[in-house]
Amino acid sequence: MLKVPEHQVAGHIAKDGKLGPLVDDQGIFYKPLQGDARGENEAKFYESFSSNKNVPDNIRGYFPAYHGVQLVEASDGSGQLPHLALEDVVSGYVKPSVMDVKIGSRTWYPDVSEEYFNKCIKKDRETTTVSLGFRVSGLKVFDHEESGFWRPDKRVVLAYKVDGARTALRKFVSSNPLADSVVPDCAFASEVYGGSNGILTQLLELKAWFETQTLYHFNSCSILMVYENDESVDDAPRRARVKLVDFAHVLDGNGVIDHNFFGGLCSFIKFIKDIVESSENCCENGH
Amino acid sequence: MLKVPEHQVAGHIAKDGKLGPLVDDQGIFYKPLQGDARGENEAKFYESFSSNKNVPDNIRGYFPAYHGVQLVEASDGSGQLPHLALEDVVSGYVKPSVMDVKIGSRTWYPDVSEEYFNKCIKKDRETTTVSLGFRVSGLKVFDHEESGFWRPDKRVVLAYKVDGARTALRKFVSSNPLADSVVPDCAFASEVYGGSNGILTQLLELKAWFETQTLYHFNSCSILMVYENDESVDDAPRRARVKLVDFAHVLDGNGVIDHNFFGGLCSFIKFIKDIVESSENCCENGH
Repeated sequence: MLKVPEHQVAGHIAKDGKLGPLVDDQGIFYKPLQGDARGENEAKFYESFSSNKNVPDNIRGYFPAYHGVQLVEASDGSGQLPHLALEDVVSGYVKPSVMDVKIGSRTWYPDVSEEYFNKCIKKDRETTTVSLGFRVSGLKVFDHEESGFWRPDKRVVLAYKVDGARTALRKFVSSNPLADSVVPDCAFASEVYGGSNGILTQLLELKAWFETQTLYHFNSCSILMVYENDESVDDAPRRARVKLVDFAHVLDGNGVIDHNFFGGLCSFIKFIKDIVESSENCCENGH
Repeated sequence: MLKVPEHQVAGHIAKDGKLGPLVDDQGIFYKPLQGDARGENEAKFYESFSSNKNVPDNIRGYFPAYHGVQLVEASDGSGQLPHLALEDVVSGYVKPSVMDVKIGSRTWYPDVSEEYFNKCIKKDRETTTVSLGFRVSGLKVFDHEESGFWRPDKRVVLAYKVDGARTALRKFVSSNPLADSVVPDCAFASEVYGGSNGILTQLLELKAWFETQTLYHFNSCSILMVYENDESVDDAPRRARVKLVDFAHVLDGNGVIDHNFFGGLCSFIKFIKDIVESSENCCENGH
């Protein structure tokens, strides 16, 4: 019944007998508890978050629903292992375009080991984490001209500089992401990023919470963006959604706002806003 | 005519024949151009900023006025040297309390040398720069009970952890900062931090600009807070003022917001807001 997720764009992949997440056909995403403290920490976060009365209702929807820890047959054949049972964010989409963006200008945090610090800061400096306050971790975009998905290699994605990240965010909402020589058309920018239910609106709602929340510090978390490309689905416009994922490094806020996540989120919002505005101008001018 | 500034709380000090800033009695602060690229870079920033038409008028007032580079007799006896001629922010105050807070969760930035990176990140991790997104660099507070200034040693200030920084921000607006065993009374919190012309209002005006400005990245800049303790001066309530200072490491924004400064600024604002709110509650309850 369980299978390898079709639309996962970042993180460990359950392929070739490796340990990774699985999904069922009921919309549940099973994420194996990582062996070290990270798995425990992520489970602890979901337990805390799901029972925390100080989290506003409108914010809960930006997190995957949590169904506890369950024993599930692991993808690497090692038998039954504990998995986090989470909402499968892309369940119900037919041809979802998906992008994973890791937020923050650092992925390390106070009191980590020197080994972990060195590993993180090296990657933070090599990617756009330091310069932009976020980095694209992975993406998968449906190309309407080619009727297939474009999914750049992980090494290519992690090598993006400022312009590479901006182009990826434009391609994500374009009908021609595969056409490398052509300017991405941003055909869906106003529907997916813009609009009253679009991604920008959702990001701004998250931003308002992060401005003052001191409950959690979301170190090394990602924003997952999803929308529908199947034309026969006439749901809300393209069902554009934002979800926060990956909470293995969440810490208590202890009265301090999560300035690292917040700064990166606002930088990301500026990129999205620029694309929405330039696509509006483009349409108004008839280009 | 030139003398060593009386109220400088951070940076190089012109004392014992060392090179440092000087002030005249006309309200000008002369800052020697540092020998390496930093001096040139700071002069370049002031030239660019003072002629930049994209900087809103309400934001200009948060920066010291700039009067060019002038040749001035250096404080270390080495003869005439080029100095930045700047507005002396504390000129006109009789008994100013002053605090210098370096904003940002890092003081290094992309493309610095490994030597500079290592020096900065060590200090960033040892201080509250990483944890809070700001660190107190120096302060000088008038104690009304003792009728004198309290000025903690630089090493003490740089060793502050989260609670130390919070206490310093409370003492800064207290009439009894020297009384170590007593809770700081936050006697001036509502006047200095709060109110329609107070420091919180000014910080929020700055914040609104930083939310979208992509002109400059203010690496390693400080916020200077000043207010008057002389009771005979009946100007605006205590003349509380915020100024940005130290622009030796400012870079072009290149279309990206200064997420590092912005995140730290918002964290700092949360601390100030918490003190204003707790002092209001305290008064309402008659404590």
